[in-house]
Amino acid sequence: MKPISSPAAEISRGIQGTNPQWSERARTRLNRLTKPLGSLGSLETIAERMVAIGEEESFRELRKMVYVFASDHGIAAEGVSAYPKEVTRQMVMNFLSNGAAINVLARLHGARLVVVDVGVDGDLGPVPGMVDRKVRRGTRNMLHEPAMSEGELDRALEVGFEQAESAHEEGCRLLAVGEMGIGNTTSASAITSVLTGQAPGLVTGKGTGLNPEAYAHKIRVVEAVVERHFPGGEEGSDPLKVLRSVGGLEIAAMTGMMLGAARHRIAVIVDGFISTAAAALAYALEPRVKDYLFAGHCSEEPGHRFLLDFIGLEPILSLHLRLGEGTGAVLAMPVIESALRVYSEMATFASAGVSGATS
Amino acid sequence: MKPISSPAAEISRGIQGTNPQWSERARTRLNRLTKPLGSLGSLETIAERMVAIGEEESFRELRKMVYVFASDHGIAAEGVSAYPKEVTRQMVMNFLSNGAAINVLARLHGARLVVVDVGVDGDLGPVPGMVDRKVRRGTRNMLHEPAMSEGELDRALEVGFEQAESAHEEGCRLLAVGEMGIGNTTSASAITSVLTGQAPGLVTGKGTGLNPEAYAHKIRVVEAVVERHFPGGEEGSDPLKVLRSVGGLEIAAMTGMMLGAARHRIAVIVDGFISTAAAALAYALEPRVKDYLFAGHCSEEPGHRFLLDFIGLEPILSLHLRLGEGTGAVLAMPVIESALRVYSEMATFASAGVSGATS
Repeated sequence: MKPISSPAAEISRGIQGTNPQWSERARTRLNRLTKPLGSLGSLETIAERMVAIGEEESFRELRKMVYVFASDHGIAAEGVSAYPKEVTRQMVMNFLSNGAAINVLARLHGARLVVVDVGVDGDLGPVPGMVDRKVRRGTRNMLHEPAMSEGELDRALEVGFEQAESAHEEGCRLLAVGEMGIGNTTSASAITSVLTGQAPGLVTGKGTGLNPEAYAHKIRVVEAVVERHFPGGEEGSDPLKVLRSVGGLEIAAMTGMMLGAARHRIAVIVDGFISTAAAALAYALEPRVKDYLFAGHCSEEPGHRFLLDFIGLEPILSLHLRLGEGTGAVLAMPVIESALRVYSEMATFASAGVSGATS
Repeated sequence: MKPISSPAAEISRGIQGTNPQWSERARTRLNRLTKPLGSLGSLETIAERMVAIGEEESFRELRKMVYVFASDHGIAAEGVSAYPKEVTRQMVMNFLSNGAAINVLARLHGARLVVVDVGVDGDLGPVPGMVDRKVRRGTRNMLHEPAMSEGELDRALEVGFEQAESAHEEGCRLLAVGEMGIGNTTSASAITSVLTGQAPGLVTGKGTGLNPEAYAHKIRVVEAVVERHFPGGEEGSDPLKVLRSVGGLEIAAMTGMMLGAARHRIAVIVDGFISTAAAALAYALEPRVKDYLFAGHCSEEPGHRFLLDFIGLEPILSLHLRLGEGTGAVLAMPVIESALRVYSEMATFASAGVSGATS
């Protein structure tokens, strides 16, 4: 048994893996549809997994939501981002006035957007449309101390659990989970290095667009952070210690939401590098969560591929994105919907009078 | 000058490349939107190309269509497909009764489907919804003679030109081009081998799902076909000779439609291996057609990657599809629409009051 603190342990205990009988049932139907066996590739795998998650074969109404968790990072003081820290708050305001990429994509693809302030360092005021669950004005500077106290970590995880409850109550069946937080690729790089055992230099990228000197500096910061909290590397297997030491409040909330969604059998589309860091921690806490996870895309951040391999997820899209906000997850929604429509609406060989393969 | 027969030459002469000033204008706007420079990856490239194709910056109404050209192949008599030849006609009937994968996907993604019989070996009768432009009941067996006569090739190309006119008259702005034809991966493999100079064994795949013995036989058939029509390989550069000798009526019609669409500044999404063989021939006839082409996906057929590289296209999706019918092209439509919506609807740094990069 891994040492799991009470809120995460409680949620994890409620997660059941999907039932292979539903996968088989889906596979049987897929093989009867008027197309060569397996010729719809990933659409078939996706349909099979969605049928197993939902334990039903008809998806007429697939309620979609996208959650964006926003928080600041103490590590931003070390000059690890191309953008000033204020941009976290400014982008939250942009989300709330419908001007960001995620607003456009959520609108186009019919997903309701919920923005959650779990740790923005600034007053947002009473803004309509935002869920205010600020745990702290950003994490502590993890170069010098753990990013969070135990109490802060528990509260951030609970913010995520609570939002999963709320999405479940709204009837959400397909959930995209994204984030906004200046400095958070540094946190995700440290998490990736500790979870996968890869050197910081291999899993650290240019984030929002660092120049070569700033990029070299960022790698040194990640090295120092990992060395400070995990000097021997041997404690890397305790996901909650990783989260508390080098995580972010929005990352903890995403981890909590993914665990909570799996408990409620909601399919979760993981977004980019930071969202996948949260998914990898959820997976390390409770491997059965994987049955509910889809990787929306593979981002340009070099650490992302290591995290996808760590969980064992194949990305649906590969569009060279490096924005976050849940954009890559929402872009994958039409592919998942396509898979389900093909599954439900195509004719079978028998019903259409089409001959089968001769060999 | 390449030797181009009259209908193809006439259409090709009308094709203008896109204007780089429109690309620059699009790039300037993309760089002002509230996201790190270039962080939307392929969506930005797609938006830039679509603005240059359309020569306008607003795409409120993007009329989408998908054309499926169906034809039979004389080479099917050589046992190169896992399915009997009758399946071409049966699948056309399935398209017309809305039971195929392309019907489901076209409906979901708002593209009007047009099915064109350019050479099905069988009577379809007066079926509502089908465009009857049968040139011949399938091609001749290219193992023994050229697949088409010169007159048949010209007529098949003209079917495509005519459908491009018709799509243009309907106001189509985004066109997916797909096909149905038992035996047509054999034709596409021969085209690929001749155009790219690769050995038949490298560019021939399992099609709809051949067993190992049948697959080895298919490779030998492609080798024999290429050797028969292009014994020295030196004539590989005449695309119309390639099309006439080892092509298909639906492939010729797709080539014609792509040339015609480029002439009318319609963006074309190429589908899988066979559709891309048609695109590669159009590109070999008139390289400026490339400005209007998008590759919807990269299929499982090994020859597809060679053709994409030959034209110089990067696929939007990679979903392990190997179905055809235009399915991979229509699946890429929501990505292209996402790119255009982001372009038109996102806030700029100035309008949203978001700080820019500091470095």
